[in-house]
Amino acid sequence: MDRRGFLKRGVALASGAASVGLVHAAHAQNLVAQPWERMYGAPNTPYGQRSRFEESIGRHVTKSYGDLAPGTGSARTPIEALDGIITPNSLHFIRSHSGTPDIDPREHRLLIHGLVARPLMFSMEALWRYPMITKTYFLECSGNSNRNLAPQPAQVPAGAMHGNVSCSEWTGIPLRVLLEEAGLQPRASWLLAEGADSAHMSRSIPIEKALGDAMVALYQNGERLRPEQGYPVRLFLPGWEGNMSVKWLRRLKATNGPTHTKDETSKYTDQLPDGRSMQFTFEMGVKSVITKPSSTMTLPRTGFYEISGIAWTGAGRVRRVEVSNDGGESWADAALTGEERPQCLVRFRTPWEWTGKPAVLQSRATDDKGRVQPSRRVWIPQFGPDIRFHNNSIVSWAVGTDGSVKNVYA
Amino acid sequence: MDRRGFLKRGVALASGAASVGLVHAAHAQNLVAQPWERMYGAPNTPYGQRSRFEESIGRHVTKSYGDLAPGTGSARTPIEALDGIITPNSLHFIRSHSGTPDIDPREHRLLIHGLVARPLMFSMEALWRYPMITKTYFLECSGNSNRNLAPQPAQVPAGAMHGNVSCSEWTGIPLRVLLEEAGLQPRASWLLAEGADSAHMSRSIPIEKALGDAMVALYQNGERLRPEQGYPVRLFLPGWEGNMSVKWLRRLKATNGPTHTKDETSKYTDQLPDGRSMQFTFEMGVKSVITKPSSTMTLPRTGFYEISGIAWTGAGRVRRVEVSNDGGESWADAALTGEERPQCLVRFRTPWEWTGKPAVLQSRATDDKGRVQPSRRVWIPQFGPDIRFHNNSIVSWAVGTDGSVKNVYA
Repeated sequence: MDRRGFLKRGVALASGAASVGLVHAAHAQNLVAQPWERMYGAPNTPYGQRSRFEESIGRHVTKSYGDLAPGTGSARTPIEALDGIITPNSLHFIRSHSGTPDIDPREHRLLIHGLVARPLMFSMEALWRYPMITKTYFLECSGNSNRNLAPQPAQVPAGAMHGNVSCSEWTGIPLRVLLEEAGLQPRASWLLAEGADSAHMSRSIPIEKALGDAMVALYQNGERLRPEQGYPVRLFLPGWEGNMSVKWLRRLKATNGPTHTKDETSKYTDQLPDGRSMQFTFEMGVKSVITKPSSTMTLPRTGFYEISGIAWTGAGRVRRVEVSNDGGESWADAALTGEERPQCLVRFRTPWEWTGKPAVLQSRATDDKGRVQPSRRVWIPQFGPDIRFHNNSIVSWAVGTDGSVKNVYA
Repeated sequence: MDRRGFLKRGVALASGAASVGLVHAAHAQNLVAQPWERMYGAPNTPYGQRSRFEESIGRHVTKSYGDLAPGTGSARTPIEALDGIITPNSLHFIRSHSGTPDIDPREHRLLIHGLVARPLMFSMEALWRYPMITKTYFLECSGNSNRNLAPQPAQVPAGAMHGNVSCSEWTGIPLRVLLEEAGLQPRASWLLAEGADSAHMSRSIPIEKALGDAMVALYQNGERLRPEQGYPVRLFLPGWEGNMSVKWLRRLKATNGPTHTKDETSKYTDQLPDGRSMQFTFEMGVKSVITKPSSTMTLPRTGFYEISGIAWTGAGRVRRVEVSNDGGESWADAALTGEERPQCLVRFRTPWEWTGKPAVLQSRATDDKGRVQPSRRVWIPQFGPDIRFHNNSIVSWAVGTDGSVKNVYA
């Protein structure tokens, strides 16, 4: 599992794989002219779509309240089917409290009021013309991976458990620009952020974050926000739990303390073993998950595989991701892509040769603050049986002698 | 136009803009509860789409041969409507020679043959399991901006002239891995790359590029390639003219010289004033274009605007983008996003106050090799009236006293 000579070993392993069927030698005359090489192709379109052969890939949609409230719940990114760092907008995870509103941007307004010298109301036309910044950030729901807190490990694709995380290039206005324009008063220590969905989803934001890297986001991966991601405007708080990046943002009120909204008291508090709850646990932990291979997949044969996955941390940059194939007995560093950017998804990769023996694959991320992703057996007792948020413990995939990959608690 | 204190000045200018109507002060009670705040929103979906209010934004589709060959021509990215660096897959520009084939990945094969020790044929299942890399690269058609070589400046949106450029995160296999596995012979000095479209679009690739940063691309912005971008597999040659990154890649033949395919003799040669042609002009030049404001737009009022645009160079990194508001008499540096990555689109931004007087906006990019984007009046005489490729000259937008923005030759 040594990272050095990655590509050289990759070639060697893949060449070995040729003998077991991964690659088929052939002569030029064996290259069949397919039907699509004999007919004129489809015309160009203004807005393209996927290949029909890829349409089975979709978000894992869960309905928390069944047909009663079909927009309440989450739709998780199929991380097991993606590669790279960017999540396509159509597959970005969704977590909403009353479905996706159909907002007319000509009618939408953003109000900044409360402890400010000048209350301001912005039309979208106004916001779209402000000075902007562009940053690539992950976004993770604080409830991500809570399915892995169940008594028995679920046998579902990785994204159905750990796919409430996505990563996009976000473009928008630094929130401090708008706050300074409104004349934020010195005694303003928090903001109330409120959405224009019918739940009026609301959170309290410390003013330090609002004046720091907080963004009023308008574009996602180049185009304007998708409705499910807050069209036409959302708050974005890099590295913090997703629900605080309030979607369909309609109101920011400067206050001298937290508002204790329904959403941050009934939900988004972390229940501890002693009956108390932690509130305002904003920052997401250091975390990683192997996406290939992952649960419900099957390795068709022995030989070379690339182990690949994603890692992230709310605190800063991912410094290191280690991979184990023996359930954490030994570890080796993986290669990283994207680790130069803070609060950004990182892709890790390492070559692996599966000899046909049972294996337990794990990944362990370390961030630039020195924080290390904890094992499940350390994390669970610390936070107890009732916690539903912030599970960043190590994920384990067991490879059986038949090549099946299963979710296990190791 | 000084870059220092960008945000501070941005605030000051935007505050000034408040008095001319960009921002409307209001009290909390003026915030109307809109219809979408009173009804339950839409349920979650597996694969999301845009807001219905954004559906007017699309690629600029041109048909080179009318209805006879509707897939021949280009569909250009609406760069005037996007922000950031990443182009969403649905809006990536298209340039095809016989439309978009509908390829079944189970039947598609990639053959590597010619001057190799072991001819190899790869199924997609095999390719999808190779060790991969992830990189963010621009792609530009060598014919981009040839509309700006017409005698009169076209009055169309920026993307209809300069939108044959896009930028994506590409994930795939380093081409050298596959070539080494096939046992490339020392006398192999070129490759022939051939597509599986009905045009069998083909180009000759120098072996140094093939063994350098060339990639066999499988994923684009996280998901598998779109059909219009070569699904299920394309070649990708960072920084080189787009047509060489052969889409729907079916064959790579190692040769001891260029093949002189129909596509590189009848097209993709640069005709010079003296009647000769330059062939194999691979690398794209250093270039930039202001996207906001740009032609066919209107500035609704005087006051603050952010001038924003994109820059790129085939040679390496963009080091600097300067902006002029007086037709090139004076220049000031713009802020850059994305310039740390080679062969990647860069977003530049600079604040500007429009006082109501006529202005000619220009941008000028410089790359890390010291190459500077040339003016149109220097570029045209050098390459003559018949050249249709590699126009990287400076673009000029004239702002009239009525706020109209027009394409001009300055």
